[in-house]
Amino acid sequence: MTTAKVAVLGATGAIGQRFVHLLETHPWFRLTEVVASPRHAGEAYGDAVRWMDGALAPSAANLVLRDVNDDLEADLCFSALPGGEAGLIERALAARGYRVFTNARDLRLEPDVPLVIPEVNPDHLALLERQRHGPDGGFVVANGNCTAIILALTLKPLADAFGVRDCHVVSMQALSGAGYPGVPSLDVTDNVLPFIPGEEGKVESEVPKILGTVRDGGVSSSSLRVSATCTRVPVLEGHTLAVSVRLGDHAEPDRIHDAIRDFAGDPQRLRLPSAPALPLQVREEDDRPQPRRDRDAGGGMTVSVGRLRSDPILGWKFLAVGSNTVRGAAGASLLNAELAAAYGLLR
Amino acid sequence: MTTAKVAVLGATGAIGQRFVHLLETHPWFRLTEVVASPRHAGEAYGDAVRWMDGALAPSAANLVLRDVNDDLEADLCFSALPGGEAGLIERALAARGYRVFTNARDLRLEPDVPLVIPEVNPDHLALLERQRHGPDGGFVVANGNCTAIILALTLKPLADAFGVRDCHVVSMQALSGAGYPGVPSLDVTDNVLPFIPGEEGKVESEVPKILGTVRDGGVSSSSLRVSATCTRVPVLEGHTLAVSVRLGDHAEPDRIHDAIRDFAGDPQRLRLPSAPALPLQVREEDDRPQPRRDRDAGGGMTVSVGRLRSDPILGWKFLAVGSNTVRGAAGASLLNAELAAAYGLLR
Amino acid sequence: MTTAKVAVLGATGAIGQRFVHLLETHPWFRLTEVVASPRHAGEAYGDAVRWMDGALAPSAANLVLRDVNDDLEADLCFSALPGGEAGLIERALAARGYRVFTNARDLRLEPDVPLVIPEVNPDHLALLERQRHGPDGGFVVANGNCTAIILALTLKPLADAFGVRDCHVVSMQALSGAGYPGVPSLDVTDNVLPFIPGEEGKVESEVPKILGTVRDGGVSSSSLRVSATCTRVPVLEGHTLAVSVRLGDHAEPDRIHDAIRDFAGDPQRLRLPSAPALPLQVREEDDRPQPRRDRDAGGGMTVSVGRLRSDPILGWKFLAVGSNTVRGAAGASLLNAELAAAYGLLR
Amino acid sequence: MTTAKVAVLGATGAIGQRFVHLLETHPWFRLTEVVASPRHAGEAYGDAVRWMDGALAPSAANLVLRDVNDDLEADLCFSALPGGEAGLIERALAARGYRVFTNARDLRLEPDVPLVIPEVNPDHLALLERQRHGPDGGFVVANGNCTAIILALTLKPLADAFGVRDCHVVSMQALSGAGYPGVPSLDVTDNVLPFIPGEEGKVESEVPKILGTVRDGGVSSSSLRVSATCTRVPVLEGHTLAVSVRLGDHAEPDRIHDAIRDFAGDPQRLRLPSAPALPLQVREEDDRPQPRRDRDAGGGMTVSVGRLRSDPILGWKFLAVGSNTVRGAAGASLLNAELAAAYGLLR
Repeated sequence: MTTAKVAVLGATGAIGQRFVHLLETHPWFRLTEVVASPRHAGEAYGDAVRWMDGALAPSAANLVLRDVNDDLEADLCFSALPGGEAGLIERALAARGYRVFTNARDLRLEPDVPLVIPEVNPDHLALLERQRHGPDGGFVVANGNCTAIILALTLKPLADAFGVRDCHVVSMQALSGAGYPGVPSLDVTDNVLPFIPGEEGKVESEVPKILGTVRDGGVSSSSLRVSATCTRVPVLEGHTLAVSVRLGDHAEPDRIHDAIRDFAGDPQRLRLPSAPALPLQVREEDDRPQPRRDRDAGGGMTVSVGRLRSDPILGWKFLAVGSNTVRGAAGASLLNAELAAAYGLLR
Repeated sequence: MTTAKVAVLGATGAIGQRFVHLLETHPWFRLTEVVASPRHAGEAYGDAVRWMDGALAPSAANLVLRDVNDDLEADLCFSALPGGEAGLIERALAARGYRVFTNARDLRLEPDVPLVIPEVNPDHLALLERQRHGPDGGFVVANGNCTAIILALTLKPLADAFGVRDCHVVSMQALSGAGYPGVPSLDVTDNVLPFIPGEEGKVESEVPKILGTVRDGGVSSSSLRVSATCTRVPVLEGHTLAVSVRLGDHAEPDRIHDAIRDFAGDPQRLRLPSAPALPLQVREEDDRPQPRRDRDAGGGMTVSVGRLRSDPILGWKFLAVGSNTVRGAAGASLLNAELAAAYGLLR
Repeated sequence: MTTAKVAVLGATGAIGQRFVHLLETHPWFRLTEVVASPRHAGEAYGDAVRWMDGALAPSAANLVLRDVNDDLEADLCFSALPGGEAGLIERALAARGYRVFTNARDLRLEPDVPLVIPEVNPDHLALLERQRHGPDGGFVVANGNCTAIILALTLKPLADAFGVRDCHVVSMQALSGAGYPGVPSLDVTDNVLPFIPGEEGKVESEVPKILGTVRDGGVSSSSLRVSATCTRVPVLEGHTLAVSVRLGDHAEPDRIHDAIRDFAGDPQRLRLPSAPALPLQVREEDDRPQPRRDRDAGGGMTVSVGRLRSDPILGWKFLAVGSNTVRGAAGASLLNAELAAAYGLLR
Repeated sequence: MTTAKVAVLGATGAIGQRFVHLLETHPWFRLTEVVASPRHAGEAYGDAVRWMDGALAPSAANLVLRDVNDDLEADLCFSALPGGEAGLIERALAARGYRVFTNARDLRLEPDVPLVIPEVNPDHLALLERQRHGPDGGFVVANGNCTAIILALTLKPLADAFGVRDCHVVSMQALSGAGYPGVPSLDVTDNVLPFIPGEEGKVESEVPKILGTVRDGGVSSSSLRVSATCTRVPVLEGHTLAVSVRLGDHAEPDRIHDAIRDFAGDPQRLRLPSAPALPLQVREEDDRPQPRRDRDAGGGMTVSVGRLRSDPILGWKFLAVGSNTVRGAAGASLLNAELAAAYGLLR
């Protein structure tokens, strides 16, 4: 396989930086273009970006920022564009022939856009038939909201083994999920913020699509009911989810643990570069998972599950922790692109 | 009314200090005895205590620490004794004729011990008939676990107006709830701890007793099912609860808001000294209640409720914030004692 | 004394809100005007402001926001305007006859503007002779930077008793000093920021002026040398200063403690409404002062000093904590205005 | 070189865990013994330890905890024993023939114990002549207090190039420096602790010894005067130091920068396994170094320096950040042992 050329859209923002970082040593993809708002076009990336953590690689620092309307030397694009403006731009790029993997919210629920987690619903890529005009045509593949991805990953093995009828989730989300500058320290120090605009609706609508079924060239959403309460806590990175589920069939704790532990998908079978050995790990300790201690599991691509126990109302409950910027954002798009490459969709 | 003399048991601990602080300016009660473990007996309170916040009143600082077996010059006792050892001591004090108001967990579920929130179930004091031997006899009145109290307060107006069949709660609890030294900073900085030993069981068992009915001289627990997940977050004071409820009857949001807003009880009618004007307040803003900004409402005795909205699974959901050390601990015992005084039970 | 009418400039910002809050119950001053940027003019204050902590008084919430060029129904103005634009506006207001007490940095070092801490240099108000045109003329009185005020307060009794030749200070400053939204939580969580733009220069230049001498109608700065390093730490409110001083004369620790403890000035003698009983308090404990536990001393107007000990290089060192938003900002302007009123300068 | 067998004393504590972690992949040293208090002797390390971060290697988890009086299968020992009891045990181990590299405070100032930072004073190992009885004899080599090490590293190039007469330091130290459970979250959240017992004396006495000269078989301390103020801030790891120095000779900023940047020592020349490429790095940004963003530089072995500027009193000032648990503790002992091995002292 030859190396594909890659553009990152919204490269100066928090998630854009994660893309740039994850691409530094990628075996299949090579960063050739960084794209930002027109006012930065022409600047060196290293001058324009306020790099957040670690050191920026010189090869990226020297790239010149481009405008999205430029002719980009890239086979595919990763989009970290802000919601609200991303959709139109991504559709336009697809029409110009680019293959776009987006972390933005705008197109996630569009009937012709696959909303994909490679371990969960790789078959949804079949929706691309609806988008592509000829074999070289561009397209858009979306990944979900960070909380929706982490939740859907934990639900998939349960859905396969027992069915899931109801899912009630309360999230304690990290600060990095709000971008930069994001949450003022005066608001969140010694505090919990009980509301994240738009977040609960995304979780409640995206998870059923992700767990939906391909039928007649479209995706039929799962009948699963989701209730989400999303809060922000003083944690830098790593979302914590308190999840309760009503399963379709009777289940024993051992069988639930086994289903979670044995869960794997095409990324593991195809040994995709960003795929963790385990998409889910079970922590046996009473007091795990914890965001600070478990967010980096599997390079940020493994979701940690623990405290599985019975729920007097819904049947079962557990806690889950996952990296919101890796598995929940930049790593999600990247794994989608790797899956598409392995399926031959980038040729 | 003459001033009653008061002993605080476990006076050097975090909750003991809250009792001492709240009693400083109390119109009905006067702190006359501070009781701690035998190794401190004979020391001045001000020398033995590591006072946490604000300034310790000289009148309290000069009190000499007593052993619990001493003859205490006190009409009633507030107990901040540690769970596990509190029960035996409190029973013994009651047998010696003291009226004990305890924040400890040991006796909360005992059939003859009222587990009281004055606005919710003042009639449970009828259980004292089972304990008292003669009009001057001692007794024990318990208050609930901090999370159980905050939750039960929010449920009571809903139970009265609509009935509550199921209650699912995820708590984000403050550090002060773990006492001192409590949670190591290395564990909770930039982190969430997904487990608090024993906490979920307390919430699930205490709330139905608090919402139960006095019948044939005993308390018959409510049939309400409670599911609790209790976590610890980096917040100094004030528990945040994400609550979902299945009501017995159909309800409209306006009627739910009205039920919460109009809620009041004997403490308000009797104008008890520690009673807030409102036991519950509704915050209309999208992003409230927040622990740092709402924990001091009503001097720490008012629970703040917000974000009432429909829950796709259970019907309704909302968030609540309350002070865990005031309404959820020392203030709870104090209000119980004031209620007992107003009912003539301290004579 | 009749009540003076007061306008707050920059009323919607963090310090503006502090002014509004402190004025709520003020015995001498009554808030009659709130002034903000033209785009808010005409809105109710309660609608325009994102009120940070506690509850906004209805009387303030109902005030209509005015433009600074409007005719203001006010005898005096408190300015919480942003540095850079404050100076011109404040000079213009003075020319229109208003008496302005400003927390902004722009005019602090102007030769005709007194830079006053009432306990330290009330005689600097003599500079107003240079500004006023007739007995009813307007003027501007400035207070210092938050760190400069806290530092100058601790230095004054030492300067009086022993002389101070050198002062080396390292500050650990609170988040509230950066205004709102201020410091992003992603920058300061689990972190220290070693730089605050412009801050060190302010401390190094303002303290010598504050400790200077009135001579020939001007202020001659103290020859004291100041070295400041200013950092930001994850603390909501209350600056902590590590101070080392080289005194002019030999000093014994007891005499230094006495000088600090006995320190008082005109605000105490005149019993000004915002004056604390003690401008400085000495904490004897090893581990005090601490910002969270000492910032509210004297209603935020008392600076706490502790850990006085010898410094092998400069002679003596100690730590100090003070409220940056009260003593270091809004309370500073307010006390200046009270002093001016007591001196008859507001008639 | 064959692999040396290594015992870690105090293996279950916070620094002991760091040793175990750093030894996992060490090319020269192999962990063969873990030693803890007698009550744990016989337990598997993995069962006895409350492992703090990341995953414990199975090879270490399966080691059986030994008592320090057992016959240890080890060529050298790393000591993370608590101060106060460490000294006697370490002397006894040396008498039994073990080569001990200790992080404990007890013996640091003993005339026959070298207090070593390999880049700063490797020649101090000559003191071992005073300890050893025969070529196979045991000995004790100490490393300094965490803050003393970070400070001495920054001073060494200045001392060599210009001489350093006075050094004034204010530290903002991380929570991990207090061990586990260490600092209660109720004390340090939204707070600064202005005192760390014993710390300032260690810094003031150890740095002159480290910068001292070997003469007549002993170490003659530097005449450098050190003034230290040590505080604790809510940061997990990484100490921040605000340093002011009076140099012996005139210096220009460029030459100071060069001296810091070009600094290297035997660990770099000998390419010791734990040696960073640069012991010191200069950050040019206004707002660096920061503990969270710079503590991991050079695997925790590089100290970051920034904000070099003139100090009106002492001449020059700057800020420095270093990892307190790696360069300031476990990594310090390890690098000392590597240096001793390269010098042939472990044969």
